[in-house]
Amino acid sequence: MPIQEQADERRPEWEIPSGVFIVTLRTPTRVNAYAAGWVVRVSEEPVMIQVAVWDQNYSHELTEDCDHFVVQVLQEGQESVARHFGRNSGRDMDKLAGFKTHPGVSGVPILDDCLAYLECEVVFRQTFGDHKVLVGRAVNSRVQCEGCALVYDYEDYQ
Amino acid sequence: MPIQEQADERRPEWEIPSGVFIVTLRTPTRVNAYAAGWVVRVSEEPVMIQVAVWDQNYSHELTEDCDHFVVQVLQEGQESVARHFGRNSGRDMDKLAGFKTHPGVSGVPILDDCLAYLECEVVFRQTFGDHKVLVGRAVNSRVQCEGCALVYDYEDYQ
Repeated sequence: MPIQEQADERRPEWEIPSGVFIVTLRTPTRVNAYAAGWVVRVSEEPVMIQVAVWDQNYSHELTEDCDHFVVQVLQEGQESVARHFGRNSGRDMDKLAGFKTHPGVSGVPILDDCLAYLECEVVFRQTFGDHKVLVGRAVNSRVQCEGCALVYDYEDYQ
Repeated sequence: MPIQEQADERRPEWEIPSGVFIVTLRTPTRVNAYAAGWVVRVSEEPVMIQVAVWDQNYSHELTEDCDHFVVQVLQEGQESVARHFGRNSGRDMDKLAGFKTHPGVSGVPILDDCLAYLECEVVFRQTFGDHKVLVGRAVNSRVQCEGCALVYDYEDYQ
């Protein structure tokens, strides 16, 4: 394929690499988990992490009174976990049912099977375009196993 | 190596994958470029991108009156470019000297040799811990060549 032809099909923002994450949001009354790629560190000391929630997602309803979230870093081979959390909606089902979890310090359920997790206390929220961003300070985090983080590849989710 | 022993050496936040980027900041009087990993999308429509600048970096001085930035996505094989922009300081040298560039719509120089770039107008800035975050709306962006984005690997920068 000629370089120009392929380049025309791609969008620059799609070239920004990311991992694949399950983000769990907790409010005083609800919990939901969704598949995410737009997760980033924003401070080294203290450790602070940012997630983003699309305004069409059920999880977006939880962002206003969300007090804690957990970022679960998936490892290579966990593409099917991402598909489960990405293709189903918390409006229709408890997406965490059937997954082994343990409670974090805030009570939020944390997936036993993931590379690493960071449980965060929400300290900031802001809308940008069609997403709401939450920034949290890590209050409980752990690497759970050996392995390499899963890097997002569009082809895995077709 | 036992799993536990290795797990103890790793920090959960280090397991969050990222690409490798050169971020160029432009103020009315200064331009500087630095190597970054903490770059993320925050809105699909309009396209908005976030970068973060460590408060010990020279670039941090530019964040207050920075009106535009460019995120240049590096591709596989460009580790030495990241090392150049990561190990030198704009306090001591013009890090862009010797690199082929072309001017963006804001006049900021854009590296000719990178996978893709997004030139953004700054719409938001906020300090989190030891970093300042800038969010920009993309005003000029392009995929420049075929290839795969470089994913950050600690070993490449020892």
